[in-house]
Amino acid sequence: MIRLVLIGIGTGHPDHLTLQGVRALQQADLVLIPLKGAEKEDLAHLRLAMLDRHRPGGAVATVDLPRRAADGDYLEAVDRWHDAIASAWSSAVSKALPQGGTVALLVWGDPSLYDSSLRIAARLDWPAQVIPGITAVQALCAAHAIPLNALGAPVQITTGRRLRDHGWPEGCDRVIVMLDGACAFADLQPEGVRIWWGAYLAMPEQLLEAGPLAEAAPRIIAARAAARAAHGWIMDCYLLAKDA
Amino acid sequence: MIRLVLIGIGTGHPDHLTLQGVRALQQADLVLIPLKGAEKEDLAHLRLAMLDRHRPGGAVATVDLPRRAADGDYLEAVDRWHDAIASAWSSAVSKALPQGGTVALLVWGDPSLYDSSLRIAARLDWPAQVIPGITAVQALCAAHAIPLNALGAPVQITTGRRLRDHGWPEGCDRVIVMLDGACAFADLQPEGVRIWWGAYLAMPEQLLEAGPLAEAAPRIIAARAAARAAHGWIMDCYLLAKDA
Ligand SMILES: C[S@@+](CC[C@H](N)C(=O)[O-])C[C@H]1O[C@@H](n2cnc3c(N)ncnc32)[C@H](O)[C@@H]1O
Ligand SMILES: C[S@@+](CC[C@H](N)C(=O)[O-])C[C@H]1O[C@@H](n2cnc3c(N)ncnc32)[C@H](O)[C@@H]1O
Repeated sequence: MIRLVLIGIGTGHPDHLTLQGVRALQQADLVLIPLKGAEKEDLAHLRLAMLDRHRPGGAVATVDLPRRAADGDYLEAVDRWHDAIASAWSSAVSKALPQGGTVALLVWGDPSLYDSSLRIAARLDWPAQVIPGITAVQALCAAHAIPLNALGAPVQITTGRRLRDHGWPEGCDRVIVMLDGACAFADLQPEGVRIWWGAYLAMPEQLLEAGPLAEAAPRIIAARAAARAAHGWIMDCYLLAKDA
Repeated sequence: MIRLVLIGIGTGHPDHLTLQGVRALQQADLVLIPLKGAEKEDLAHLRLAMLDRHRPGGAVATVDLPRRAADGDYLEAVDRWHDAIASAWSSAVSKALPQGGTVALLVWGDPSLYDSSLRIAARLDWPAQVIPGITAVQALCAAHAIPLNALGAPVQITTGRRLRDHGWPEGCDRVIVMLDGACAFADLQPEGVRIWWGAYLAMPEQLLEAGPLAEAAPRIIAARAAARAAHGWIMDCYLLAKDA
């Protein structure tokens, strides 16, 4: 019998971890570390440092993750990819924990937000418990010391692809954009729009930009390109707000 | 010179606190505890227990918060109320820290989400640092072990009042509703809608309900009324999703 604990580890600062997360790490029989290729190595280091600090010498199993097919229908490709990840988890766990036990997975940010661990776990017969973690949304607002929503007003969380394909969401003056590899903000009508942008939030490399979209957009595009070239990878997100 | 640190403490579990939050609590020269009247006493206990545990004997100042005027224009009343809170903070702090220093405020959930501490701090000349915390949104998803968003799809965070006045937000199949004192979900067309509801999330009193809206709504209304009567207060929120 395998039980899964998905532990939200926050978005880059080792001390984003909650006390609940520390305890869950310590109580797990095994921690599963998925390896995702060279560009994510910096992030694997963070996970390993958390383990060293909070459960030194504890059991760890690494899993080489399969790659997602780049061609064909996107949702279908993701579906097959999740099937393949589920079997990779399953074989790593049955090898390391033949008698069963509790397996912890360290999930970037919070397991509920643009993360597939819960969907993958649903393919296995393992009951999953979730330990919430700090999301990139909170890390962004904290870094800029700004509220997410205007007083009593709504906010939408969406992706770069959606923003590009569907434009500014109806009836909502504030939008958080994640998973944007192509600067979708640059295609918006910038009048009356402000942006608060952050990359590598909560990490030593953190970059912030903010201002009226017309002025800030070129700065962000340049900073993003330079940082991506320097580090080999980038994670960024932003809040857009229409002036009241 | 006063510096403010807004520490997100999570939504009811003492171990929602992050390691960063613990450190900020320990390093502050003073912790300011706003007192909000009897119905919030249970929540004050949680804050005091955190202080006992993480900075026993450390300096604490309590502030009796002014009450918001119940009549007149809502946004104007809130504005005047925030002015009054800012002066209450200011006099408590200048009494307790005449030489200046770092003042920590323990903010429910995360300081960015439907919280006014940043807007109140902006009225004073105090630079504010934010330590992110677990929000009720993450606590809800964790308790139900569900994702917030569908794959690559957007989610809107809104209030009970907005949902009642404006109906289901355009172009978004998932909605988180907070600050709903009047069961706004009950006025929606329930066909093809599911709800995941939680009250007192992450606390010993936690209540959960989930299911197709038509079936779950009466259960939630009954559970909510009973719990409110038993405890004298309730905090609840929910995720609504249209079937794909
Ligand atoms: C696959 S999603 C995972 C989100 C994560 N589960 C969370 O709770 O934040 C990855 C996206 O999150 C955002 N993100 C995550 N960590 C970030 C960081 N440290 N700085 C900036 N953006 C980040 C970026 O938009 C990135 O494209
Ligand atoms: C003024 S807002 C503060 C939100 C907080 N800053 C956060 O990050 O979650 C209060 C609303 O949050 C939600 N909430 C906060 N804590 C909760 C809990 N433990 N259980 C259920 N809902 C909660 C409820 O919708 C409540 O009306």
